[in-house]
Amino acid sequence: MAGSQDFTADPRNANLKVWLNGQLVPKDEAKVSVFDAGFVLGDGVWEGLRQHKGALLFLDAHLDRLYAGAADIALDLGLNRAEMIAALHATLAANDMTHGAHLRLMATRGVKAAVNQDPRNALGAATIVIVAEYKEPSAEIATKGLALATSTIRCTPADMFDMRLNSHSRLPLIRALLDVIPKGGDEALMLDPGGFISSCNATNFFWVKDGEVRTSTGEFCFNGVTRGNVIRLCDANAIPIKLDFFPLRDAHAADEAFVTGTFGGITPVSRIDGHAMPAGLPGPVTQRLRTLYDALKDEQALYAQMRAAP
Amino acid sequence: MAGSQDFTADPRNANLKVWLNGQLVPKDEAKVSVFDAGFVLGDGVWEGLRQHKGALLFLDAHLDRLYAGAADIALDLGLNRAEMIAALHATLAANDMTHGAHLRLMATRGVKAAVNQDPRNALGAATIVIVAEYKEPSAEIATKGLALATSTIRCTPADMFDMRLNSHSRLPLIRALLDVIPKGGDEALMLDPGGFISSCNATNFFWVKDGEVRTSTGEFCFNGVTRGNVIRLCDANAIPIKLDFFPLRDAHAADEAFVTGTFGGITPVSRIDGHAMPAGLPGPVTQRLRTLYDALKDEQALYAQMRAAP
Amino acid sequence: MAGSQDFTADPRNANLKVWLNGQLVPKDEAKVSVFDAGFVLGDGVWEGLRQHKGALLFLDAHLDRLYAGAADIALDLGLNRAEMIAALHATLAANDMTHGAHLRLMATRGVKAAVNQDPRNALGAATIVIVAEYKEPSAEIATKGLALATSTIRCTPADMFDMRLNSHSRLPLIRALLDVIPKGGDEALMLDPGGFISSCNATNFFWVKDGEVRTSTGEFCFNGVTRGNVIRLCDANAIPIKLDFFPLRDAHAADEAFVTGTFGGITPVSRIDGHAMPAGLPGPVTQRLRTLYDALKDEQALYAQMRAAP
Amino acid sequence: MAGSQDFTADPRNANLKVWLNGQLVPKDEAKVSVFDAGFVLGDGVWEGLRQHKGALLFLDAHLDRLYAGAADIALDLGLNRAEMIAALHATLAANDMTHGAHLRLMATRGVKAAVNQDPRNALGAATIVIVAEYKEPSAEIATKGLALATSTIRCTPADMFDMRLNSHSRLPLIRALLDVIPKGGDEALMLDPGGFISSCNATNFFWVKDGEVRTSTGEFCFNGVTRGNVIRLCDANAIPIKLDFFPLRDAHAADEAFVTGTFGGITPVSRIDGHAMPAGLPGPVTQRLRTLYDALKDEQALYAQMRAAP
Amino acid sequence: MAGSQDFTADPRNANLKVWLNGQLVPKDEAKVSVFDAGFVLGDGVWEGLRQHKGALLFLDAHLDRLYAGAADIALDLGLNRAEMIAALHATLAANDMTHGAHLRLMATRGVKAAVNQDPRNALGAATIVIVAEYKEPSAEIATKGLALATSTIRCTPADMFDMRLNSHSRLPLIRALLDVIPKGGDEALMLDPGGFISSCNATNFFWVKDGEVRTSTGEFCFNGVTRGNVIRLCDANAIPIKLDFFPLRDAHAADEAFVTGTFGGITPVSRIDGHAMPAGLPGPVTQRLRTLYDALKDEQALYAQMRAAP
Amino acid sequence: MAGSQDFTADPRNANLKVWLNGQLVPKDEAKVSVFDAGFVLGDGVWEGLRQHKGALLFLDAHLDRLYAGAADIALDLGLNRAEMIAALHATLAANDMTHGAHLRLMATRGVKAAVNQDPRNALGAATIVIVAEYKEPSAEIATKGLALATSTIRCTPADMFDMRLNSHSRLPLIRALLDVIPKGGDEALMLDPGGFISSCNATNFFWVKDGEVRTSTGEFCFNGVTRGNVIRLCDANAIPIKLDFFPLRDAHAADEAFVTGTFGGITPVSRIDGHAMPAGLPGPVTQRLRTLYDALKDEQALYAQMRAAP
Repeated sequence: MAGSQDFTADPRNANLKVWLNGQLVPKDEAKVSVFDAGFVLGDGVWEGLRQHKGALLFLDAHLDRLYAGAADIALDLGLNRAEMIAALHATLAANDMTHGAHLRLMATRGVKAAVNQDPRNALGAATIVIVAEYKEPSAEIATKGLALATSTIRCTPADMFDMRLNSHSRLPLIRALLDVIPKGGDEALMLDPGGFISSCNATNFFWVKDGEVRTSTGEFCFNGVTRGNVIRLCDANAIPIKLDFFPLRDAHAADEAFVTGTFGGITPVSRIDGHAMPAGLPGPVTQRLRTLYDALKDEQALYAQMRAAP
Repeated sequence: MAGSQDFTADPRNANLKVWLNGQLVPKDEAKVSVFDAGFVLGDGVWEGLRQHKGALLFLDAHLDRLYAGAADIALDLGLNRAEMIAALHATLAANDMTHGAHLRLMATRGVKAAVNQDPRNALGAATIVIVAEYKEPSAEIATKGLALATSTIRCTPADMFDMRLNSHSRLPLIRALLDVIPKGGDEALMLDPGGFISSCNATNFFWVKDGEVRTSTGEFCFNGVTRGNVIRLCDANAIPIKLDFFPLRDAHAADEAFVTGTFGGITPVSRIDGHAMPAGLPGPVTQRLRTLYDALKDEQALYAQMRAAP
Repeated sequence: MAGSQDFTADPRNANLKVWLNGQLVPKDEAKVSVFDAGFVLGDGVWEGLRQHKGALLFLDAHLDRLYAGAADIALDLGLNRAEMIAALHATLAANDMTHGAHLRLMATRGVKAAVNQDPRNALGAATIVIVAEYKEPSAEIATKGLALATSTIRCTPADMFDMRLNSHSRLPLIRALLDVIPKGGDEALMLDPGGFISSCNATNFFWVKDGEVRTSTGEFCFNGVTRGNVIRLCDANAIPIKLDFFPLRDAHAADEAFVTGTFGGITPVSRIDGHAMPAGLPGPVTQRLRTLYDALKDEQALYAQMRAAP
Repeated sequence: MAGSQDFTADPRNANLKVWLNGQLVPKDEAKVSVFDAGFVLGDGVWEGLRQHKGALLFLDAHLDRLYAGAADIALDLGLNRAEMIAALHATLAANDMTHGAHLRLMATRGVKAAVNQDPRNALGAATIVIVAEYKEPSAEIATKGLALATSTIRCTPADMFDMRLNSHSRLPLIRALLDVIPKGGDEALMLDPGGFISSCNATNFFWVKDGEVRTSTGEFCFNGVTRGNVIRLCDANAIPIKLDFFPLRDAHAADEAFVTGTFGGITPVSRIDGHAMPAGLPGPVTQRLRTLYDALKDEQALYAQMRAAP
Repeated sequence: MAGSQDFTADPRNANLKVWLNGQLVPKDEAKVSVFDAGFVLGDGVWEGLRQHKGALLFLDAHLDRLYAGAADIALDLGLNRAEMIAALHATLAANDMTHGAHLRLMATRGVKAAVNQDPRNALGAATIVIVAEYKEPSAEIATKGLALATSTIRCTPADMFDMRLNSHSRLPLIRALLDVIPKGGDEALMLDPGGFISSCNATNFFWVKDGEVRTSTGEFCFNGVTRGNVIRLCDANAIPIKLDFFPLRDAHAADEAFVTGTFGGITPVSRIDGHAMPAGLPGPVTQRLRTLYDALKDEQALYAQMRAAP
Repeated sequence: MAGSQDFTADPRNANLKVWLNGQLVPKDEAKVSVFDAGFVLGDGVWEGLRQHKGALLFLDAHLDRLYAGAADIALDLGLNRAEMIAALHATLAANDMTHGAHLRLMATRGVKAAVNQDPRNALGAATIVIVAEYKEPSAEIATKGLALATSTIRCTPADMFDMRLNSHSRLPLIRALLDVIPKGGDEALMLDPGGFISSCNATNFFWVKDGEVRTSTGEFCFNGVTRGNVIRLCDANAIPIKLDFFPLRDAHAADEAFVTGTFGGITPVSRIDGHAMPAGLPGPVTQRLRTLYDALKDEQALYAQMRAAP
């Protein structure tokens, strides 16, 4: 999510240990070669995960996406699913984290013999990095909201670069964000190739009109775990939701709006291209979904505990 | 260029020194933080350069492209043009290189406070890396040629992600290459959004039919320095050349074909989607352009020497 | 379906009689003028039909499509529906066929005064040809499967040439197949104009992921009778099925896949662009659908018998 | 060209002999199997040629296009260039034709073992048919002109079906013509995928505004021999000509217009979608080009004679 | 709806009074400045409404659309919803109308200081015009029907000009109508940017095939109040209805067809591009919907009366 | 041009007379019926013209465009070319204007019997309005420049609504302007359907990079008289100019930029999406073109005087 969010430096993050290819090293020593495929080519996939009351939330969904993404780019992660889960927990344990940590798991094609695009030039194993930090959305974001501005940069279709692949090549999206920063945007709203609303540059986008939640159909936005949860929460709680091809003017006329992501969960939007959201911050439907989502997180944490118990 | 090229490890590359933010460090110590924007986001621009008889070939064109690319992504390189040239020469000097070095200059947005897309979260200066290695295209490539295969992945248009930006986010192109490796492709041929021939995944593509050199118009391919030189060499030497929207079948029926790039210069293509090039390897027009390009390199090197002389 | 299938020459096909404009003539004498609109222009429509236990399967659906197609190209078939059915049965009777025959009914605009595109230059009646042969998919295809490869040739939209028209102008599709034969493809997988999965060159395409059957929405693929039956069988048997715009990478990650057509019914796919289908050949969902489809054929044959009984 | 043209039956065509795979057979006996790839699939390429004062006009251009088209669809014609020329002349000789014959050379993939799309199922050699007839555009067409009407059917792009391939699969174009016949169109004017003027269904389209000849750029129209000649005649005679992407309204506002094709040469257009051409029939530029084209034909015939002389 | 409809001049319309910015003025004096944004720029939004048995039908839906449209173009209407309703009733009262009036409410950006596009140059308040006339569809239209012809002009997508905005800039649509008048069209049928059926130039389009009502999905057609009512009537009365992307040939093969609009309600279509509708005029499904719609109007009028009663 | 320009009210405009259908009426009495096709439908075409030293500049070009536009929408202007010129001069004479007047000539389809789209419902003659005012671009605009911001609204292609038609239906363009006003834009920069730079909402756009003037190819921008003059001035004065498909980032990196229009002539641009133009205001190439354009105006005025002299 965009930079206007105020991340308060947390003193507990002072002596972090980072997982780096099986080692837990101090943050300052967590370094990769300049010949790493991640650095030279953005050739990797990643996951953001949140720790909540001891559990890694929606872990299965995240790992499904990670392994599917790796398979899609023919990247051998080197660790099987159980080993990857162990690595995540080892990282949390090394940092004595039990609640509120935000993790970023990064997997790249590792060091290259020659820094060209050919994946066959990778010298050895994938680079696996796990960073865990205490990081929370600022309290005020729920009442202040994010300002969105629409970029002229459009989302790529799947036959060019599938937005659903959670990759290290983020520059197309950063370009969209750069486009709107001078316009006061915290996050860029992006249109699909046909000119309909599709995604934000780092989160998924929803809005509410006359009680109906609306979002894009999914071909041109992130395959978001939180997005999926919001859609399921709507269905399960009889909140009308419609996935369709909507024009930008539909969002401009919204009653309320929010973006979703693993880090921020459900974050209210204050204005879109200068159009203020009239239903308050957060709006009533947004707030209801936030409450439902909080309950879902607790339920998931409890369920994970029970599953882990002997 | 694709991995089928046989890069012979050169013993002179044993103790390389790499420029890393003003320091010249041994290759094994050339490392960046896992919080570097290049590693986490592919947020950077780069140039490949060749040293030839003491000179850095087409240095102005490369620096023009580098600074234009950095401006396009609002990246402050931290070094002005003279300082950047000095850094390149210092790297060559530290490695005692006077001829035949291949350089990769990489510039990323540096270490991030939070590893999200927001460029305002960069903590400080850009990361500047310069790698210089002895590296030559294998001698046999001129007679063996590259096999191209067309990918179903298409080039992105400029309103999504401009191919002309020489960026660290290479995964869309790597995906295209991954698509053709099982088909025996050394390099992927890619179509533009309208289905016409546009580019290879890491080089620019030309072909020859009835004495006419053909290539794409330039909206959907790399802004290649070598590409520009080839076009100028054709114009200057009365070799017919046409930049247009060509169908794939036009390349399949080519007499000869080649790809261009800073590393390989002009590299012949042996076959495209199984269609062998009937005019030999290299074909006569390809060979003539190679000869002209070799002369241009010598001329440039001489000119650079003269300019540098007191 | 593609040529890799091993059609065993059946000795019962030795003395076939072919329906040609009301006559039943030996196969070798079944000839049309080189001025026939079918030959010079591909100006005609056709149906493939299968005889099963005495009945012509799904005859209504095939005739609906035939007459709709003829109307769409302003082609007067010259025979009404009852007469066409009689012709089909007369052909079968002339060859003493009661089970296992495969029929191809072809209807072109007949002999032209001038061999140009103008339909008003047709001299007289449509050319109606009915070929009936003993022809079965090879037994091993169910375990060996078809290898698909994606063509760079895309399906035409309806405002250019509607894939749903079952026409004699097959060269766009043959071109797609030609594209993949050198890549080891038995059949070409084709994308729609927007780059999503749509069709194979001669069959319709389905795949299975996590128990869900997936296929394209239908705007850019064949209006297949078997396709319709598979969708109905899924709905009737609570097999999850989704018709949507899917990216190619979704098929690459499939558990199993199959193609459908009147001749082959439901034919398993072994690999797609080199990605093997992990769920076996045929996969469990494919096998279940094959079993259901076999039952449907028997049921249809029985029903046809009952309807025909006095 | 469309059916409104009045082809007068010529008594000299009474006892025509047709070339059929090396035999010269009476027209009524010129028949192909219903298993021929041309009949079942439209799987073939063809050329129209005109005999003028003993010579076959622009023979090299036609044969270039024929062999390129055959290569594009992987069709082995079975005859080399010299043999093909001999076949054309043998056909003319068998019919005692020395001037004014119109020839149609058709080459299909021949008889299929199974009538599916797979080219590997062709049993043997290509089917080669040469029809030569005495056929002239009616005298009055030059003063009456053709009425064009724009179809809603658009031209296919090369990544779907290249209009430049002179194929037997003409139904997409016949559909366009069918679309305009009820509107009084003799020939359909067609737009390209982006909505610009591209082609007629069977001829190429030119118009004249303020003395400038205009036509499409060539990506989405026929690779016409006469089209090429008209462009060259304009260039050679300082007649301004512009190939560009023009909107339909530009043609509606034309001073004069004409279509080109091997049979009709340069045929004036009387009206486009009801807009009459104000500059007369033929208009002055059209007439000048007709005169230049007539001279070119004579010159070509003379040159062919000289080349043929001992 | 198109001009072929025979509007009989009604003598009761002789001395109409028109609402003009708060005044009720005789029709001949209802004039606006040539500097009005409506006149110079088409800068305004409008609604058509029908009076039925004392009530303004579907008034809420019309006002919702009006105020949403005004907000979309940043136009301050100057009257709140209650005031606008009062103005409508005042206009009807001034003309002693109680049943059968057709109203057109027009709101433009008012008089401009400079006649350029900048909305900030508007000198003062919006121009509000309400015209009420006795106007009925001719009785014979139900049995004669409208002839549609497809235009080559396509509907604009929402990222260019949203068809759902009921604006005063109607020339793109008038151009489509002009295109088909010479072809005998009463109203133009228009395709969407992808070439599928979307809308008529002034009404929405539906057709019926095998008992199923079909229409476009709504992204590229008018946000019609009557369209919405027809869809709801189908749903409420178990009449199958499908909103999808349909090819033009689907409409050509329709059993019956109709267009919808506030003025004409549900108007049968007699032919589409020369294809006559075989199910009669009106067809049975059309007639059933007309009957249901008549009942809905009565119900609405009764309900409005009851609501208005003390 | 956009509203940020400071039009100083000129006292000489106090008692203007406006041409209204053959009458010269005081400005306040220049009114049209609310049934006028211009007001209800934006159904008309217009021209802006400038008087300079007694002459109407580029009068032929403006009248060519006016009559071509009227023909394109089947609008009979009612006045022939000589009569129209006389009307323009009569308007200037009635206002005693000899230099510096700006004229807007508007022609709509006149009063409608029914206010629907059908042009056949026009009751009588076209409405012709000519407004002449003393109006000059503010002196400071040349040094202050216009701020452009790119709209997400894209230009319409010619098969939807040709930007080259100078129409009264300006709302698509006003929508683009409305989009950028909150971003501080004086004028909206707009992209074409493929995402390349095409036009501003009310002017044409040029920029300068390394001494080369750049602009769009013309398919998706206004057919501007000033645009044509600038292109011709470049050609005539050896100023490099390139018309092509450029990405937005190319304009962001411009040295200088300007817009063209009849009213403002050549107006410098100060910033584009926040990117300031580094070459000053006006930049040197812009200034050179302004000087050349001033000379051209004088030359034209002199030439017009000479032509008018007895």
